[in-house]
Amino acid sequence: MDKFEFNVLAVVGVGLLGGSVALGLRERACVGQIIGFGRREQSLATARELGVIDRYTLDLDDAVRDADLVVVAAPARAACDIIRRMGPMVKPDAVVTDVVSTKTDVVESAAESWPVPVRFVGSHPIAGSHLKGASYSRPDLFEGAVTVVTPDRTTDVAALETVTAIWQRLGSRVINLTPTDHDSALAITSHLPHMVACAMALAVGESEIDPIPLAGRGLADTTRVAAGDPEMWRDICLTNRTELIRALGVYDRIMSRLRLSIETCDEIALEKMFQLARDMRCKIGETADGD
Amino acid sequence: MDKFEFNVLAVVGVGLLGGSVALGLRERACVGQIIGFGRREQSLATARELGVIDRYTLDLDDAVRDADLVVVAAPARAACDIIRRMGPMVKPDAVVTDVVSTKTDVVESAAESWPVPVRFVGSHPIAGSHLKGASYSRPDLFEGAVTVVTPDRTTDVAALETVTAIWQRLGSRVINLTPTDHDSALAITSHLPHMVACAMALAVGESEIDPIPLAGRGLADTTRVAAGDPEMWRDICLTNRTELIRALGVYDRIMSRLRLSIETCDEIALEKMFQLARDMRCKIGETADGD
Repeated sequence: MDKFEFNVLAVVGVGLLGGSVALGLRERACVGQIIGFGRREQSLATARELGVIDRYTLDLDDAVRDADLVVVAAPARAACDIIRRMGPMVKPDAVVTDVVSTKTDVVESAAESWPVPVRFVGSHPIAGSHLKGASYSRPDLFEGAVTVVTPDRTTDVAALETVTAIWQRLGSRVINLTPTDHDSALAITSHLPHMVACAMALAVGESEIDPIPLAGRGLADTTRVAAGDPEMWRDICLTNRTELIRALGVYDRIMSRLRLSIETCDEIALEKMFQLARDMRCKIGETADGD
Repeated sequence: MDKFEFNVLAVVGVGLLGGSVALGLRERACVGQIIGFGRREQSLATARELGVIDRYTLDLDDAVRDADLVVVAAPARAACDIIRRMGPMVKPDAVVTDVVSTKTDVVESAAESWPVPVRFVGSHPIAGSHLKGASYSRPDLFEGAVTVVTPDRTTDVAALETVTAIWQRLGSRVINLTPTDHDSALAITSHLPHMVACAMALAVGESEIDPIPLAGRGLADTTRVAAGDPEMWRDICLTNRTELIRALGVYDRIMSRLRLSIETCDEIALEKMFQLARDMRCKIGETADGD
């Protein structure tokens, strides 16, 4: 068995991301049998009908004990719990990774409860959509995406190589960061934007005049990520509290400066901030879209 | 001359919007000669070369004195100044409108200095893009867009009918609002989103780790409108200060509630806010995009 061939893959949480890993590895002939684990039998049955998984079980031990590769794709807090419980269940040579959007808590869950060197390697593929469920899974979801892999000093080197190779095989560009640096950067690039978009959507809801008939593309773009899954985002916030609170503080200070410029009619400060914001948006756009 | 035929159209400020009115009315055979007025001769010369206007002048009186229809498409504060000066220049039967994103100050500028009933009618076509300049003008820019027309009790009824008919001819759905209601609604649907997007872009700039390689579509969407023209947005903020400050206050209170829920790990409150935000985003999306 080389590093691209796994007799048994267990997918823990068969949603958009877990399902897309399954489809992607199967399409690339990297896996034999694929076992799905989850909370809701109906979702698992649908995933099997769609050919995303070969069989499913509601018993975690049954799902992972024969697996050569386990991918944890549950919401952040459930993932932490599952990773803690999984330590004694998996085979000694199994490699385990995840797709959770926050990394410190997930990596700590393995470090606290698994033997060293730890064969769990944290991953975060920066891909996805507001669509939810295995039926939206695509074998090419990770092509062209960045996947952050977050080893620490307890990580097994061979497991790190395997996980890196898997994401590359799925078409990702892999970046290594410490769990803390990952969570700090993602607080700014992903978790803060979610707060900002949700607050903007909620402000629309508090307007006295119904402003929706007057909504243009600007409002739609600014609020788009607020359509994300509430449960997933609740977990992201709660597992990245420290960094997110820090990011909210930075944002709040900038908003106060903008507000003060408007209150005092400081047209020079205002135009300068808009100019800086435009320059920064152009840099973001070069990376993230084709503008 | 019926209400769709104007011998002379003057476009005051020949950028994306002014140019698109010119191209749209010419394509629909509604105008004879089109005169452009602006500050920068080079831009005007380009607009003439592109066939957006027939001739140009840097003299406001020369631009508007023979016009049957005048469209003011300058940034908000310049527009207010121009409308004040224009009163004694235009023909008694000329109709004047504008495309400025804030309406109270613009409409007041005419009400203060023009004879009653006022043949100036405020308009705001909710269309455009972050692209700037006459070279991006399109005769179909207003097709399918909402255009808000903002008469008050001093407005000439025939002028209101003419302006309404023009926007309908250009393909817009016309909504009437008072200038204050317009500015209140747009503070929420457009001006606040611009602040939110700019503050988000500036927060990215203040990050210690360069987060841009980790930026996904979420950050790109949330910050997209920050690419707008700084001078135009400065003017929008300064001509809609009261309503924008009120909207910033609403937004700030919502952000504080979100932040408190994270600080206190109030998972029920957090998930509920995300759920409400998602519901609101779905309503916004039904109007503004095809999601």
